[in-house]
Amino acid sequence: MIDKLITKIKKTHAPIVVGLDPMLSYVPEHILQKSFGEFGETLEGAADAIWQFNKEIIDAVWDLIPAVKPQIAMYEQFGVPGLAAFEKTVSYCQKKDLVVIGDVKRGDIGSTSTAYAAGHIGRVKVGSREFTPFHEDFITVNPYLGTDGIKPFVEICKEEHKGLFILVKTSNPSSGEFQDRLIDGRPLYEWVGEQVARWGAECMGTSYSAIGAVVGATYPEMGKVLRKLMPKSFILVPGYGAQGGTGKDLVHYFNEDGLGAIVNSSRGIIAAYKQEQYASFGPEHFAEASRAAVEAMKADIEGALEGEK
Amino acid sequence: MIDKLITKIKKTHAPIVVGLDPMLSYVPEHILQKSFGEFGETLEGAADAIWQFNKEIIDAVWDLIPAVKPQIAMYEQFGVPGLAAFEKTVSYCQKKDLVVIGDVKRGDIGSTSTAYAAGHIGRVKVGSREFTPFHEDFITVNPYLGTDGIKPFVEICKEEHKGLFILVKTSNPSSGEFQDRLIDGRPLYEWVGEQVARWGAECMGTSYSAIGAVVGATYPEMGKVLRKLMPKSFILVPGYGAQGGTGKDLVHYFNEDGLGAIVNSSRGIIAAYKQEQYASFGPEHFAEASRAAVEAMKADIEGALEGEK
Repeated sequence: MIDKLITKIKKTHAPIVVGLDPMLSYVPEHILQKSFGEFGETLEGAADAIWQFNKEIIDAVWDLIPAVKPQIAMYEQFGVPGLAAFEKTVSYCQKKDLVVIGDVKRGDIGSTSTAYAAGHIGRVKVGSREFTPFHEDFITVNPYLGTDGIKPFVEICKEEHKGLFILVKTSNPSSGEFQDRLIDGRPLYEWVGEQVARWGAECMGTSYSAIGAVVGATYPEMGKVLRKLMPKSFILVPGYGAQGGTGKDLVHYFNEDGLGAIVNSSRGIIAAYKQEQYASFGPEHFAEASRAAVEAMKADIEGALEGEK
Repeated sequence: MIDKLITKIKKTHAPIVVGLDPMLSYVPEHILQKSFGEFGETLEGAADAIWQFNKEIIDAVWDLIPAVKPQIAMYEQFGVPGLAAFEKTVSYCQKKDLVVIGDVKRGDIGSTSTAYAAGHIGRVKVGSREFTPFHEDFITVNPYLGTDGIKPFVEICKEEHKGLFILVKTSNPSSGEFQDRLIDGRPLYEWVGEQVARWGAECMGTSYSAIGAVVGATYPEMGKVLRKLMPKSFILVPGYGAQGGTGKDLVHYFNEDGLGAIVNSSRGIIAAYKQEQYASFGPEHFAEASRAAVEAMKADIEGALEGEK
């Protein structure tokens, strides 16, 4: 799957992932009215609204990008119908040949991690049959529980040719509270990064490992160090756009081959029509505003990477 | 909700939580056949089987215990139907007046944590209506992202009178890989424990905070230190029984008032009929075996606590 992701990045010239993190407040009124008209103001209605919203955005941007990253919390908040909309979104994106990174940040131990891995990137056995419930291509995973918590995911990645992005240095303001604390003179995130490289060595694709890392765009100096510590790990970079990161901040997340990172933008793309610069599209044409925002992001990152050459 | 938990612990004389972590391999053949007969060998069939299995165990043990802890991964692995069985289990336990601790180990930042909190312990707005999708009483949360990741959960706990158990020192063998690393001379788990005490100060019940901690039974010396660091935090203790912890290991997790900890056993209770000492019950009477196992666990822990007096 990491090889597919790389092929698609090269083809689209876009090391970009669109975060499908729909809040109901992003969904234009005409979609809400239609969904609530059909299902009422219910969890089913909310789930239908975010699914219709996603579908229109995917239809507008799929040819420009290699991958999407649905944030499961935004679906899970609507309970069982919300999770059905999550699965529907994953399926629809895969039909458009997009790589799907499930931003699930799961993490537990032993048989529990195995269960999460089975449900999200593997298979679950029921009697004599097998199912792939949420079937993402990659998922994000939390490392706080150590190797016991990660290994079950890595095993299933090997079997199913799927991948992980493990949280190393997150983009939020307080991420340093624990992640930056010094252990034998080096911050915790470096120790985690070294383990990512080690776990990843077992799971190599052609040039990169299927086991990547999450490193926030908001900490470019740390990104530079981590890039060198995990030379074969792809870095998923949140925090671009709405959280404050710019193309220039991102150059050090890439290797000299121009690969090694994929930059996420969520709100900046999917709610573009709410920003002043795309307001002229209007709520009716929100998906076209998203397409324009993807094109602008692509240009910003391409420009920054070109400037480095 | 922490006050309710304490009242129920006092009433049942059982600082015990039964982990509802059903694997299909625990479910007796006669239940599997019935569920597969009705729904086929499908995700729906698997979800029905674990729900029927849970229901029978709850009916057999509810009067002995204050709380249950369903592990969501075991449901999530069966996709959307599995998550419906999770919600059904939560509802059924609450009808029996049990406190429900959703073992979800979620954790993200800002609006994403808010979405998880809304879906699990809060309310989600859809148009003019509000819903409580998974409506657990407590949930477990991962602290790796720092205060930004925890605060949205704490806020909703305050509004809704719910509670958290934050991972501090987990029960698994490799938990020390990051959690035990020394920072300014003290292990990471102590720094996390101190933050739990700080976050908890905002959310006090009558005698304990609604913000508790997870500390594994497999590390009793660390439990002793953490007990003192977080005097007002309840400790949820996994790792008893199947993972190797015994009653004697647990005495230091309690305060002098005899409160402050709640000990989880999952497999040891729900799959008791598969153990030699309860084999005579047979698969038909698996729930009675679970009741006997709860009684034995209660006696073990009571005995250990009495021995301390």
